[in-house]
Formats: sequence, structure tokens, C-alpha cells
Amino acid sequence: MKAAVIGATGYTGVELVKIILKHEHLELSAITSESYAGNKFSEIYPAMYGMCDMVLEENNIETISQKADVFFLCLPHKAAMETASILYKKGKIVIDLSADFRIKDKSIYEATYNTEHTAADLLEKAVYGQAEIFTEQIKKTSLIAGAGCYPTSIITPLYPLLENNIIDDNQFIIADSKSGVSGAGRKPTLTNIFCEANEDLKPYGIFSHRHNAEIDHILSQAKNNTHVIFTPHLLPVNRGILSTIYIKTNKDKKEIENAIKSKYRGRFFVRVREDIPAIRYVTHTNFIDIAVFKKDDTAIIVTAIDNLLKGASAQAVQCYNIMQNIDEKTGLI
Amino acid sequence: MKAAVIGATGYTGVELVKIILKHEHLELSAITSESYAGNKFSEIYPAMYGMCDMVLEENNIETISQKADVFFLCLPHKAAMETASILYKKGKIVIDLSADFRIKDKSIYEATYNTEHTAADLLEKAVYGQAEIFTEQIKKTSLIAGAGCYPTSIITPLYPLLENNIIDDNQFIIADSKSGVSGAGRKPTLTNIFCEANEDLKPYGIFSHRHNAEIDHILSQAKNNTHVIFTPHLLPVNRGILSTIYIKTNKDKKEIENAIKSKYRGRFFVRVREDIPAIRYVTHTNFIDIAVFKKDDTAIIVTAIDNLLKGASAQAVQCYNIMQNIDEKTGLI
Amino acid sequence: MKAAVIGATGYTGVELVKIILKHEHLELSAITSESYAGNKFSEIYPAMYGMCDMVLEENNIETISQKADVFFLCLPHKAAMETASILYKKGKIVIDLSADFRIKDKSIYEATYNTEHTAADLLEKAVYGQAEIFTEQIKKTSLIAGAGCYPTSIITPLYPLLENNIIDDNQFIIADSKSGVSGAGRKPTLTNIFCEANEDLKPYGIFSHRHNAEIDHILSQAKNNTHVIFTPHLLPVNRGILSTIYIKTNKDKKEIENAIKSKYRGRFFVRVREDIPAIRYVTHTNFIDIAVFKKDDTAIIVTAIDNLLKGASAQAVQCYNIMQNIDEKTGLI
Amino acid sequence: MKAAVIGATGYTGVELVKIILKHEHLELSAITSESYAGNKFSEIYPAMYGMCDMVLEENNIETISQKADVFFLCLPHKAAMETASILYKKGKIVIDLSADFRIKDKSIYEATYNTEHTAADLLEKAVYGQAEIFTEQIKKTSLIAGAGCYPTSIITPLYPLLENNIIDDNQFIIADSKSGVSGAGRKPTLTNIFCEANEDLKPYGIFSHRHNAEIDHILSQAKNNTHVIFTPHLLPVNRGILSTIYIKTNKDKKEIENAIKSKYRGRFFVRVREDIPAIRYVTHTNFIDIAVFKKDDTAIIVTAIDNLLKGASAQAVQCYNIMQNIDEKTGLI
Repeated sequence: MKAAVIGATGYTGVELVKIILKHEHLELSAITSESYAGNKFSEIYPAMYGMCDMVLEENNIETISQKADVFFLCLPHKAAMETASILYKKGKIVIDLSADFRIKDKSIYEATYNTEHTAADLLEKAVYGQAEIFTEQIKKTSLIAGAGCYPTSIITPLYPLLENNIIDDNQFIIADSKSGVSGAGRKPTLTNIFCEANEDLKPYGIFSHRHNAEIDHILSQAKNNTHVIFTPHLLPVNRGILSTIYIKTNKDKKEIENAIKSKYRGRFFVRVREDIPAIRYVTHTNFIDIAVFKKDDTAIIVTAIDNLLKGASAQAVQCYNIMQNIDEKTGLI
Repeated sequence: MKAAVIGATGYTGVELVKIILKHEHLELSAITSESYAGNKFSEIYPAMYGMCDMVLEENNIETISQKADVFFLCLPHKAAMETASILYKKGKIVIDLSADFRIKDKSIYEATYNTEHTAADLLEKAVYGQAEIFTEQIKKTSLIAGAGCYPTSIITPLYPLLENNIIDDNQFIIADSKSGVSGAGRKPTLTNIFCEANEDLKPYGIFSHRHNAEIDHILSQAKNNTHVIFTPHLLPVNRGILSTIYIKTNKDKKEIENAIKSKYRGRFFVRVREDIPAIRYVTHTNFIDIAVFKKDDTAIIVTAIDNLLKGASAQAVQCYNIMQNIDEKTGLI
Repeated sequence: MKAAVIGATGYTGVELVKIILKHEHLELSAITSESYAGNKFSEIYPAMYGMCDMVLEENNIETISQKADVFFLCLPHKAAMETASILYKKGKIVIDLSADFRIKDKSIYEATYNTEHTAADLLEKAVYGQAEIFTEQIKKTSLIAGAGCYPTSIITPLYPLLENNIIDDNQFIIADSKSGVSGAGRKPTLTNIFCEANEDLKPYGIFSHRHNAEIDHILSQAKNNTHVIFTPHLLPVNRGILSTIYIKTNKDKKEIENAIKSKYRGRFFVRVREDIPAIRYVTHTNFIDIAVFKKDDTAIIVTAIDNLLKGASAQAVQCYNIMQNIDEKTGLI
Repeated sequence: MKAAVIGATGYTGVELVKIILKHEHLELSAITSESYAGNKFSEIYPAMYGMCDMVLEENNIETISQKADVFFLCLPHKAAMETASILYKKGKIVIDLSADFRIKDKSIYEATYNTEHTAADLLEKAVYGQAEIFTEQIKKTSLIAGAGCYPTSIITPLYPLLENNIIDDNQFIIADSKSGVSGAGRKPTLTNIFCEANEDLKPYGIFSHRHNAEIDHILSQAKNNTHVIFTPHLLPVNRGILSTIYIKTNKDKKEIENAIKSKYRGRFFVRVREDIPAIRYVTHTNFIDIAVFKKDDTAIIVTAIDNLLKGASAQAVQCYNIMQNIDEKTGLI
């Protein structure tokens, strides 16, 4: 099947290109870029010299739409919804890595992203791309709303706990998350230059990060009105997210673990561990590592993912594999 | 006044040496090392060539005790209590950077450190070296129990909040802390080698770190039976601690901030900020930065310190300055 | 074909395990460790949980020799020669990653490594594992002396230049090389702990690094009596080597490049570039990137490799592929 | 004496502010910024909160000129020459950290910087600010051309060797230099963002870096027509430069060292070492560390400096101290 990556020169784009090149069922047929159209991909990513010297095309959706069967969209929100809508209506498979179709409630989306949702008719069709939770729905859709990076690290362990009423009602859920700098994208700013990020750690978006709405929205599908107190931190590593999650529960460690293990039984990319997860164990993989610790009435759940892979591009391809009913590991190990 | 650093070749030792060399009221008269006695200090720390070429002496306490008036002890716990006891009884000023005199309750100490406390008679004399909280007591003692690094970052903001009943009863206090690798000391282990710590983040000592007992013990002096859920993380930077602290309270941001500001009014090294603290703002300084954020009934308090300075050696000298009734900034800016 | 990794828990060992698991013609049949026998591989490398949970066996060569057809030796020098000798005489394919068979001149080896060579009869059989230079010999041997990491980065561009008399006689060749910390191995020492290597750069082994003998020895096969002035530096990154090589020549840039390109025509893993090589372009790959710059009578040749892959484990497998007459890229992209 | 920092918000500006605040003979009376006028300094550098909350003024030279006696210019080249000229003619002490007055030959300057030199009348007055070489001239001038960072690391050891004819005629001098990312300034670009610089090393400006002209120009004052082959590399650390310098000479190690030691006898900030210099030994100091290694007819000279201090702001203040005939260490240790 022919695959196109729309907006291929960001960090999620290059990861998609690499995966598609290794994927036995996909052929990379087009890559686009607004800023770098006309350049070879390897001029923008010199590491790819000899691996992908394909020329980047403009984001002309009419032209591009004829070149592939499946489209991975690595566009900013708002731009994504418009492109997705056109492609979807042409019968293409669309896997959108932006936030545009993650929140089914138009008003929450609009409040969170401070822009009108112009493709709201598709919100019902879109399936949230956490590959292990929404597997059955993914099989039946042709529009994936790729899961956010922080949300993947938080939703994956909490969804089954909420489904099974393991978290005390009327109690907090706190997710203290730390992300590598690639999460901030490739656009140079005073925040992500080397000397300002290196040898540092700082929280940002306290009480106000957009992923909080996504986390709450998806988890509320497991249990109504779930709210997570979510604090992201900028971590001086290239890639990876570690989330330290605090919940109150009277269930013991085994019960908590079992709820997670039952939900994800047989799913290769979810590793419930006994030892403490670390970013280093999951970078360059599609794994999500999860471990549960318990004392008194507090459980601490630690998760780790690669933000660009399980948190974006690899999970997007995992969703594609599920849609196509092929081994979900294809192209990913 | 003559100062000696006992155990000068660890990371807190070298910071003390640097501070004492700049301190107008202190003269460095002796430095000791168990492993490196006979070497010049600058052979162990080549950066200090031309700055401190003094020869390291053995830890022979009888000989060393005659060489100085004030002793900074950078020894492992247990070794520290014995040395401190001898020096104290000889009338010396003792500033101990180990954990040995931080917890006044012998049984808690012994349970936490799994060893007998053989200088328990001094526990009553020792003053906990958080310089801004125990200032009055520090003025009157000659034995300081230097505050721990993580505890300094957590106790400093919480102490006045507990004193003022700002934190809801029967509610959690969570401190999610991240520390640079120098906190693990200078002994090579598989945990602190470059390739295992770099490009990584991981929690450790979940529910079991020894500093938890210290934190709870000191905070319980502000309010009985305080318990903090404390999770340390190993962060790939040389130095610095950032603590993200979660509390429940019905007080607003201003009231919380005011409790902290009132407690520390006029204290140069406590900076209550409006913007978000970052490790980078405090490294190589004795500052503790604190900021308060509030939404609904949750407050998030973020603090940052340099673990080797405010979290160890500089705060130790700040205590010395207070004991001597000189400007607490002497040697520290 | 069954493959064993002897000494699997060092950094080259884990890379070999990963490659063999992906290699369609190899089956990982045994892994050994002196320190960790009895442990699952994933207990030593938690990242490999679910990928390789095989139990590490003791380095008992009689037992192990029956378990595989090809043996990758990741042992210290001296230990390697003894194991290699036994396996070779049993008719096994042996790919030794140590220095033991790289230098065919027993006396140079013994002077460089300060130990007796007890398998000198095999020196003639062994082929130096720079895969693109010694391809024809590799096809005919069953004993590979895996090329050193620094040497690979220096020999690959210089060999064809010396063969073609492009470097002025009686002139210096200088190789200023910088290597990531994984090159120092996984044994904790004061040199490779995080706080001593991070935010630093320093040369080491000036005029005395053992790889200098290997470089000179191999290059002297291209042109007699070649000597390189080689200075390694310890670089604060996990992996990668960049070598900046200075030569004198009256040939122009094109002639120099052409000598390199001709030698390596059709070889996928040698990339002669126009832009400046960078470590980041080659990490996690088997590529060696080479670029030539020229002004007046000085040429600067810059090369970059991943020290653990092209500089060790991946090139070892590339040699295996060549020996087996299969696509040299098998398992490596 | 009142001091102003013109262009105070770059990395050299903030270092000057810190030094002046500690300097007993200087009072910081004005700071300016083109981009951030009207902001408090601590809003741009939050680390300076409580240390320097002074408001940044516009670069209005007429207004500013009345506010101080000594002006440190941290402006881009070209802008610097105009400001310097005005201030100098008003009788102010001017210490310019740009390249504008480093090269006394107008035509070389113009060819190198590709712009007209509009203050060429001052080129004769300006003294090159390598503090240990041009000490006597510095005492007599009121216009310092602050030495470049790379040049300081290369000129300092080579100047006395050339003066003493220690380097073979008609032989190369190679300087392979590696600099931390702060050398690239604080303007965000694709080169200096974290994910592009971290875990990497690459050369840049091969045969074409502007500092090459400066190095050759200054060294030719020691010996006519000196030319250095200079290759800078971008190193993933915040600060520091290490230069590995290769020369040919028939003098032995002692003679080479002695030439350097004689030249710098009694100068605190030049440390000629026996062990190998490292960036870590000099960061946050004004030291330049130098070591000499010799084998056959090749000498390798390794130097290390902090690019922002000895390579810029601290050496600028050292020059000021020399001009004022006060201890050159004032404010710098």
C-alpha cells in the first residue's frame, strides 16, 4: 500500500519515514513540506542520505491525494482538520497525528485550542489512536486521531483502573510528567536552544497544558468526570516521557497490576514490569513500560514511553497495522 | 577562624573548600581524606590547581582536632557521629553534613539508617541546619546537623504552610523530586556512569528513601504527624534539585504565598517567584526558589535548589555565618 | 545458523544481541557472561524485557561450543585469543571483537598489549574486519579480527589514499578523534561516571593509545611504514566517533574523493558526502560518513561512525554476511 | 568607577554583569539591550532575580555615554565600531568584545567580515586584549579589542613558541578546537537547538572561520607570516573550549614548556600543567590551562578555557584591571 507523509520534516515526520521504509506492507510514495518543498529529504535530515533521498513536495492536497492510499498527517492543529477532511472524503485512510480529532466534543476542542472546528462532522468517525484500548474501533475506521504523547503515557495505565473502579472516588489523580525536548518540536525558540535546556529541568504549562483536556476527555470514557492534575516538565534529553502518577486506592498492588495486565493481555508493546521504568529502557521502541508501587492507601504508577514513537509515529503505524488486520508489530521491531 | 574539612574529596567537600577559600572570616587550615591522604587536593580535583594545593591529611581526629576551630564533616553517616562527638566535646564548632544528627528521635534514626546511634546524648544539642527556619536555635548551638538536599527543597516551603494550617487535614502532601547525578556521590557505580544516566530519567527509592523520614520528622515540628509522599528521580544533569509539590487547600494563591513570604521576610536566599522555577536559575548559588500555583482546591508548589550548595555545603556555611552573627551571605555570593 | 555471543553483557554484546534477533539468517542460541551467569539477559539490560529474556550462561567454552555455529567474542584481549583458538580448531566461525588478532606481527602485539600472544599460529588465518577493505579475504576465512572503533574511522578513508600515493611522503598524518563514553566500556570508573564526563571534553592516551599500533599496522599494508599521529578525546555523548584527519597532498579535492569513491563503489555503508559529517547522522547505523575538504596543500578528511556499530558489533555482523555470501546489509538496516 | 554593559542580554553580557556586581572597584550603572529595553534584567535572566533587577535601557549612545566611565560593548561587529568610536572620542574607557578592532589591517578586516571599517582611525589605538601577552600596551590604552574565544585558546601557547623560534619553519601548525554551544550565541537557530546539538559533534567553518584571520594576524606579530590550520567543532556542552594543537619542532618538551612558562611567569590565570587539560577544570573560571606533550618531532599542546570567561567577559575585566593598575584578579576569583 502506498503511504504519504504530509509534513514530513518535523520530528514525528522523520520517524514515520524511517518506519515506513522498514515496513513490509507500506511503500513510501510521497512526502511533503511547507518550508522545504523541492529539497531532497536527506538535505533536511542528512542522516537519511542513501536511505531516503526522495524530493519533498508541496502540501498541495489535490495533487498529493492521488499519490497514496494512506496518509499520515504531521501538520499543526487546524491545518490538519482541513487536510484530513478532504482526504477522508476521497476515501483515503487518514492517520492524523495532530490534536484535531482527539476530542469528540467540539466545544471542549474549541475552548482548548481556541479555534473553530471546521470538520466537526468527522469527530464521530475518528477513533482515538491509543492502540491497545481502542483496538476494536480502530479495526473499523479509516480515520485515526493519533494519541498525544503525554496522554498515551497517562491514559494507558489509568483507563483500566478507572473501568474497574480501582481509584477512590472523590480523590485526586496526579500525573507528574517529564518529557524530552523533541516534544517541543523542531522550531527554534529560546526555550529549546541547547544552552537554555541543557543542565536544567523546569515545569511548564502548570494547570494549563492542552493535553490535560485530552487526558480528561478520554479517561472520562472509562469513568465519567475523571479529572487528572497534570504537570509537564521539560527534561534535558532528546526523547522520552516518564510519568509518575499518584492515585488513592484501597486495592493492593496485585489487584491494580492485574487490572492493567488483564486489559493488555497479549499486547506486545505494553510491558508491565516489576522493576522501576526508565526512559532509557523504551527510547527507540514502541513500548510503554508500566510499574505499580503501593504503600498505605497510595499507589504510584510509573510509565515510560518514547514520545516520538509510542507517543506519536510508531503508535500511528501500530494503528495502521490494526486497521489492516496485520501483525501489530509490523515495521515496529 | 580556622576551618577544617573532614572528608574533603567528595562533591560536598570540594564545594566547602571553594567557599572557605573565598570566605573572609575563615581560613582553610586542614583537609582530610581516607582514600587520598598524602595527595595534594589539586591532584584529586585538578580544577583546583593553583587554588588549593594543600596536602590531604589522614582522618586522625586527635591530630586534626588541634588544627582548627570549626569542622565541617563530610563523612558517611555513622562515621560522622563518632567524629562529631569527639570534636564537640573538645569545644569545637561542628557542622556535620551527614544524616546523623538530623533526626532527634533515636529510634527513628536507628530504624531508618539500620544502625545504632552511639552519640545519642548529642541529639538534643544538635540544631537542624535549615538556615531560615531554625535561625534562632542555630545562633545558640555549636553543633549543626546540616539539612539534607531533598529535605531542604521540600521543608522550606511546607514548614510555614503547616505552621499556618494552610494544608487541609487528612489530605495528602506529595513531593515529586528530581535530582542531578552529583546527589549520588562520587563513588563509581553502574547507576551513575555516564552511559547509564545520560539521556535517561528514572525514579528510585519509591516509598523507601531515607530522606522521607527526615522530611516527616522535621515537618512534624511544624504540625504533628505530618507525612509526605516523596518520590526522588535521577536526572541527567550534574547538579540541582527541582521539587514539584502537590497539596490540597482551600486558601488562595496569595494566602499561601504570604505564609511563605512572612516566614522568610528579609532572608536573601529565599526567592518567592511569580514565574516558574528552574534548576538552571539556582545552580552555583545558595538560593532556594519557590513559586506557588493554585487551581480549584489544589496548590502546586515548585522549588529549586543546587543540591551541593543550598542542599549541602553553602547552607552549612550559611549556618556558620548565623552562629557567628555575621552577614549570612558572607562567602556565599 | 546458530549464533552465540560470548561476553554478552558489555555494550558491544548487547548491540550484537539486538542485531542477531533481527537477522533473518541467524538464530541467537546462547549468550554468556562471567559476571552475570544465571541471570536473564533482560535483568542486566531491562530495555530488552520481552525482547530477550534468555538466561546468560557461564563462559564454559566446552559446553558453549556445542551450542552454535558462529561465535561473536566480546571478551577482553588475552581471554579472547584463548577462546578463539579453541573454537576455531573445532571448526566454528569465530568473529572476535577484541584486539587479539588485529595485528599480525606477534612482537608488535606483545609490545602494545604487554602480554604474550598464545595463539600466534592463528594470526595468519585471521582477517582484519574492516568490511569494505578486506572483503575478498573475509569471504575465505572463518576467523575475523573485528576492526577497532577508532581504527575503522581512520583507516577507511586513508587506506585508498595511501594505496594511490595521494598523501605526500615524509609528511605527517594527524587524526584528531573524539569518542562517546560507551567506548570506555561499562565498568564504572572515576573517568566514566556522569559528573566527571558530562559537560567536559578531554584528550587521553596522547601518543600512547593502543589503537595507534593497529592503525599504523593496517595502513602500512596500503603503504609501507605509514605512521599516524593519533589523539583520542573523551566526548560527553553516549555513542559515536568523529575523526578529523589532516594530511598534506598536492592532489585536489576531486582526486582525493575519487580515490575513496572508487575503492568503495557500490558499498552501501560508506557514504562520501559533500556536507560536513556529524556524529548524529550515523548513530544507531552501520554507516561510515566521509567528507573531504581541501585548501592549499592541506586536506581535511572528516569521518563519523557509531563506535558500537560500524566501530564494533554491526561491522562484525557485516563481516559475517560477507563470509556467508549474503547481502551485507542483512540485519543491519 | 561606573561601568555600563552595552548589549547586556547575550551570554557575554550576563557574565559581565555578574563579574561587575562582584568587582570592588566597579559599580554597574547602566545596562542596555536592543531587544529587551524596558525589561528588568532579571526578567530576561531569571537566575539574576534579587541579584540584578536593574532595568535595561535602549542603546541610545548619547544618553548612555553620560552614565558611566567604562563601557563594555557586547554588540555585533560593525555596530560595535560605531559605538566604540563615539565613546572613545568622549574620553571613555572602551572594552569592545566584538571583532572590530582586533585586526589592525583594515583590508584584512574588511575581507574577513565583508563590510567597510568605518572607524579605521582607531585601529592604531586599540590594543588586543589577550591580557598576558599585551600587558604593557593594555596599561597605556583606553580602547581594548577583546580577544576572541578560539584565538585566546590558540594564541596564548603559540605566541611565545613563535617568538622563540621553537616551531619549525615551513611546517604546519594545526589547531583542532572544540567549543561549547554558548559560543554560537543566544539567538535560536536550527544549529543550536537542543535536539540538533545534543549527543552530537561536528566540525564547522572548515578552512573558513573568521577567527582564523584573527589568529594568523596576531601570531604574525610574534613571527611573520604565521598561518594556522584551524578547525572548530561544535561540542554538546554549555561552555568551554578545548584546543588540541599540533606543531613540528626539534626542541624537547622542557624547552617548549619553558618558553611558555617564562612568558607567563607570575601570571595567575595561566596554568601550565603536567596532566592533560580538560574543559571541566576551567569552566566558571578565568584560567587558561596549557600542557605540552612531545614525541619524535611532533609536539601536541592542549589548552582549555571557558569561552565566556577567559574567552570573553572575564578576560575583558582582566584587561580593565590591568589598565587601572589594580590586581588583575580583582572580581575574577
